Amino acid sequence: MSQDGARQVQESEGSAYRVEAAKSDAPPFDSAHLDELMDQAKLDALIVTSKHNIQYMLGGYRFFFFDYSDAIGLSRYLPALAYVRGRPDLALYIGNGMESYERDHGKFWVPHLDFTTWSTADSMRIAALHLASLGVPLGRIGLERSFLPADAEAALRSALPHCEYAEAVMTLEELRACKRPEELALVKEASTRVVDAMLAVFAGHGAGATKAEIAEALRLEEVMRGLTFEYCLIAAGASRNRAPSDQAWREGEVLSLDSGGNYRGYIGDLCRMAILGDPDAELQDILADIDAIQQAARAPIRPGVTGREIYESAEAVLARSPHRDGMRFVAHGMGIIPHEAPRLSSRAPVPYPGEYFDAPLRAGMVLSIETTLPHPKRGFIKLEDTLAVTADGWEAYGDHGRGWNRGNSG
Amino acid sequence: MSQDGARQVQESEGSAYRVEAAKSDAPPFDSAHLDELMDQAKLDALIVTSKHNIQYMLGGYRFFFFDYSDAIGLSRYLPALAYVRGRPDLALYIGNGMESYERDHGKFWVPHLDFTTWSTADSMRIAALHLASLGVPLGRIGLERSFLPADAEAALRSALPHCEYAEAVMTLEELRACKRPEELALVKEASTRVVDAMLAVFAGHGAGATKAEIAEALRLEEVMRGLTFEYCLIAAGASRNRAPSDQAWREGEVLSLDSGGNYRGYIGDLCRMAILGDPDAELQDILADIDAIQQAARAPIRPGVTGREIYESAEAVLARSPHRDGMRFVAHGMGIIPHEAPRLSSRAPVPYPGEYFDAPLRAGMVLSIETTLPHPKRGFIKLEDTLAVTADGWEAYGDHGRGWNRGNSG
Repeated sequence: MSQDGARQVQESEGSAYRVEAAKSDAPPFDSAHLDELMDQAKLDALIVTSKHNIQYMLGGYRFFFFDYSDAIGLSRYLPALAYVRGRPDLALYIGNGMESYERDHGKFWVPHLDFTTWSTADSMRIAALHLASLGVPLGRIGLERSFLPADAEAALRSALPHCEYAEAVMTLEELRACKRPEELALVKEASTRVVDAMLAVFAGHGAGATKAEIAEALRLEEVMRGLTFEYCLIAAGASRNRAPSDQAWREGEVLSLDSGGNYRGYIGDLCRMAILGDPDAELQDILADIDAIQQAARAPIRPGVTGREIYESAEAVLARSPHRDGMRFVAHGMGIIPHEAPRLSSRAPVPYPGEYFDAPLRAGMVLSIETTLPHPKRGFIKLEDTLAVTADGWEAYGDHGRGWNRGNSG
Repeated sequence: MSQDGARQVQESEGSAYRVEAAKSDAPPFDSAHLDELMDQAKLDALIVTSKHNIQYMLGGYRFFFFDYSDAIGLSRYLPALAYVRGRPDLALYIGNGMESYERDHGKFWVPHLDFTTWSTADSMRIAALHLASLGVPLGRIGLERSFLPADAEAALRSALPHCEYAEAVMTLEELRACKRPEELALVKEASTRVVDAMLAVFAGHGAGATKAEIAEALRLEEVMRGLTFEYCLIAAGASRNRAPSDQAWREGEVLSLDSGGNYRGYIGDLCRMAILGDPDAELQDILADIDAIQQAARAPIRPGVTGREIYESAEAVLARSPHRDGMRFVAHGMGIIPHEAPRLSSRAPVPYPGEYFDAPLRAGMVLSIETTLPHPKRGFIKLEDTLAVTADGWEAYGDHGRGWNRGNSG
């Protein structure tokens, strides 16, 4: 293995950790924006521990070995990124020993690396030692407490007992809120591939195929397209149960596929409909109404608009539908995780932790809009679309297959 | 949706939770054994929050929607299982609203269900309310602190401030240590399928294929066989770097694939070798020596034997190999997570949290044995095998393809 630079060895109570100086590139995110957000939240430093925020701050990197699973031995994999406000040159990434392979592939911009951790508490002791060694003010440290194990937080508080700790989830969400062009390209690719996979599955299945078989086929179609399959909600016939099962799809019945597929850390999350045979007039009307609601939701989308305007536009059309009983419309931000900024609401902005609730849209945000009718007789009928906010409007991603797709009727 | 039975609605500070009485089956694990282990650890109750232990205690169930990812909104999915010693009839499973689909499919043995949580803290408040409502002693509660978010633990401690909290990781690991026949069948199936996938990949790739392409092909071959792909470590040529990359496999070079694939919650984790062309005498000797060490490790395996005997048997053969420089042997338990009970050691049993370190083997335990030579000129050469301890010896799972497999030389 190559030696990337000078190494600094520090000892602490019983455990050695080794901070290596890596080649130092510029952060792949807007670090000035992060510094400003940290300043607003009065955070001197961050210790980031969620896989999705580490991925974001490492420019798309996620350690492949623990991609699906975390548990190992008596603890689990806990990567951590320590970041000091205004000082990306002091950032430290803490990972597993096998991540040295990725260091040797030049995957890290972060100037300091430590690959000696094998437990959650180790990771935090290393982060604490690093921060303490820098000689910078550490009054208040931001954490992701939903993604920081209890034993790791205890180790951190014990190592840095005089710091104040604060929740950083909103700071990090706001950092990710506007996607850069290369991020949008990944969301678009994920969306397109998810819909392509659905259309292949619809065309390849007919009467007698079970929901479990169809969901498994979708998993394979997504993986064949380079996606990480995340989930498939599936309903068939009159049932509104959306879990895979041995219920078979029958001639004349509807089928809904609502799936999340992940492409290099960005998700496609869409819902498309199919039928075995031809839709009757009522089914055609229902899906046309759902489409009209979805189009009404799109109409106002542009920078400066709030979620309230999207909801009002959609709900005005929904209120006129003869099928409105039980029909509902939802809009939410997405891109890296299934629900994220922007947070949209049909109500006026309400107080919320942070200041981002139903704030005006900005270019680069990505929205999911969903209109759902869980009809007691006709079954579960839904469209979910993905829209990126552009400089003067919106662009829909994976926007095909929105009508009644046909299953294989033989 | 069906109403499975009486519902009990309780209110607490601002949040409503709804405990439903489900149909109550017998636990799918040995609850008398769990009660005994809890008694030894002086635990009155457990709150289990790791996906793998919930899966175990729910008889293989894992909620499909959050199988890959946890993050959603400003928090994350946190399933929880509350269990009172000696009282499986009081157990409560806390999950997401969409898990009602799986309740309607009869997936839960647990007598009490709550599907109202949308955050880590919610999950713990619901668990605390349930436990407090039972009128049973709750002096000491076991937790999995590496799998319990810090904010969730704080919510729990705030709701039940007079309880003592203890680490339950060893108790739960010991509960899982001996696999039942139906569990062993899954480990065997996972192992067989992982090796089958590797052999298909070896045969289908030749000169010029990159490590990234080969790893992606293995992912697809595993998914096609019904596995959840977990990871692929891959090295080619003289390099000992095991991360996928654009390094191409060349004629005459070795290739190692070390992959974890998950079949219904049980993992296959094996390593197999291939070469483009024919192995020369030295490569044949090296792999023969590695095989001899692996066979020596198997020889003593039977109930009552300790890890030390396995290590001594393997290391005696290793010490005689002309290729022993840098060669190393490791044995560890596996099955549900990559390293678990039994914990094996080449040293005499040493003090450890709990009493299970290098305890004698029992039937139903599953071992992974690995012999590795990261050779500076010939490359990374390794075999990893999976062995189940049987009543009078061992059975190897996925035990094919252990020689020099040939790549596609055209």
